[in-house]
Amino acid sequence: MEVLKIIKIGGNIIDDDVALNAFLAEFAKLKGPKLLVHGGGKLATKLANQMGIEVKMTNGRRITNADTLDIITMVYAGKINKSIVANLQSNQCNSIGFTGADGNAIVAVKRPVSDIDYGFVGDVVKVNSEAIEVLLNNKITPVFCAITHDEDGQLLNTNADTIASELAIGLTNSFKTELYYCFEKRGVLKDVNDDDSVIEHIDTNTYQALIEQGIIADGMLPKLSNCFQAIEKRVSKVCIGKPEMLFQTNSKFTTIKE
Amino acid sequence: MEVLKIIKIGGNIIDDDVALNAFLAEFAKLKGPKLLVHGGGKLATKLANQMGIEVKMTNGRRITNADTLDIITMVYAGKINKSIVANLQSNQCNSIGFTGADGNAIVAVKRPVSDIDYGFVGDVVKVNSEAIEVLLNNKITPVFCAITHDEDGQLLNTNADTIASELAIGLTNSFKTELYYCFEKRGVLKDVNDDDSVIEHIDTNTYQALIEQGIIADGMLPKLSNCFQAIEKRVSKVCIGKPEMLFQTNSKFTTIKE
Repeated sequence: MEVLKIIKIGGNIIDDDVALNAFLAEFAKLKGPKLLVHGGGKLATKLANQMGIEVKMTNGRRITNADTLDIITMVYAGKINKSIVANLQSNQCNSIGFTGADGNAIVAVKRPVSDIDYGFVGDVVKVNSEAIEVLLNNKITPVFCAITHDEDGQLLNTNADTIASELAIGLTNSFKTELYYCFEKRGVLKDVNDDDSVIEHIDTNTYQALIEQGIIADGMLPKLSNCFQAIEKRVSKVCIGKPEMLFQTNSKFTTIKE
Repeated sequence: MEVLKIIKIGGNIIDDDVALNAFLAEFAKLKGPKLLVHGGGKLATKLANQMGIEVKMTNGRRITNADTLDIITMVYAGKINKSIVANLQSNQCNSIGFTGADGNAIVAVKRPVSDIDYGFVGDVVKVNSEAIEVLLNNKITPVFCAITHDEDGQLLNTNADTIASELAIGLTNSFKTELYYCFEKRGVLKDVNDDDSVIEHIDTNTYQALIEQGIIADGMLPKLSNCFQAIEKRVSKVCIGKPEMLFQTNSKFTTIKE
């Protein structure tokens, strides 16, 4: 099977025009089928402030009420997604912007209300890969923002890391999928203060030991849990590190395999 | 060749939730390949007001500065386009939202500055039909908002009527294209105050006479000029009228043919 690279970039790149342009120029040059997932960055919060809409947070998580969903749809699916697509076209990378509603690609359910009502937040239930495959087979690169839908007309806000892993899992029937999480660190670090202490390989055996030693802790716990979930569901490898991992042969990053 | 229906809806439907939902439910049921183009409505102006951004008009036309372009991209390509796509999915019509940047579908040039600097307004120079055709051949309906790009990374604001006619023209190599302009009237009226006085057929012969008689005047002049331009460029017919013309066999509307 052909390799499909699924690459997720976060707010740290989205919010930095120079970094984003540099990333997209390199991304455009990557050979073979590829798919980009992008996070949101600070623009949605900025717009909410400009519009006088209060952003409600609970435990550090944004509550997506109807106004917030509108803002997210405008910023993520409008401004950010279409700017990326236009930029990729200028780099001769033919691309089409997606939410999960487009091509019915990612179906989610509104998160049930328990202690917290997260509002219009979607938990992914299904990836429909047909439209994506048609485009990939025609050398067109899908660019996903972090919005899904419920097949009943409702758009939903969904975590971009989750979108990326669900797509990587959902496309395993047609491609050998590789998932790349680009973030601000070079990967899982033995010493959080030493950027050179990258752990280059983690597998299911070493994973537990790293948790017990406290090396995988805090924000890295859900991130790595997400990665291993993808690995368990037939994603062939997951890499986390700076974007350079994709473009520079000598760069260090963390690769996660079974 | 197979018939492709290209249907344009304007602000009067976009701004009316009930009318829009009713339209989309009927649109979803239309048999055969189809493509939707939508205008913007009043939401962009509303958002600009909320954000304290001044909308500059010259001769009744919006001047698209950078702030306005951001708003248009957010509202047209984000909120409106994705709401329509999600709605169509709930009506079992598989669709994908497009700007002209997506799939490099519609290339434009920034309008040269003469007496007026319209800002980021694009005049269409080329339709690339490949991505659209791939989707149509896979029973996926493209939904276009009125944004193009210049292949150099710049999004541009373009008139939705023009987008519709350029798409209808650009797809004539692969389809027998029919162009439907839905608006608030039943078509070209002999008597502007009598909704029953629809002129049901106009061809190149009767067109000039209707202009000379003053029946085609004011806002209808550019609209009809647009229609005949499409006809001259091998669009098989252009219809203008209320949306019912598409769904009700006994409704009156104006058909324009060679």
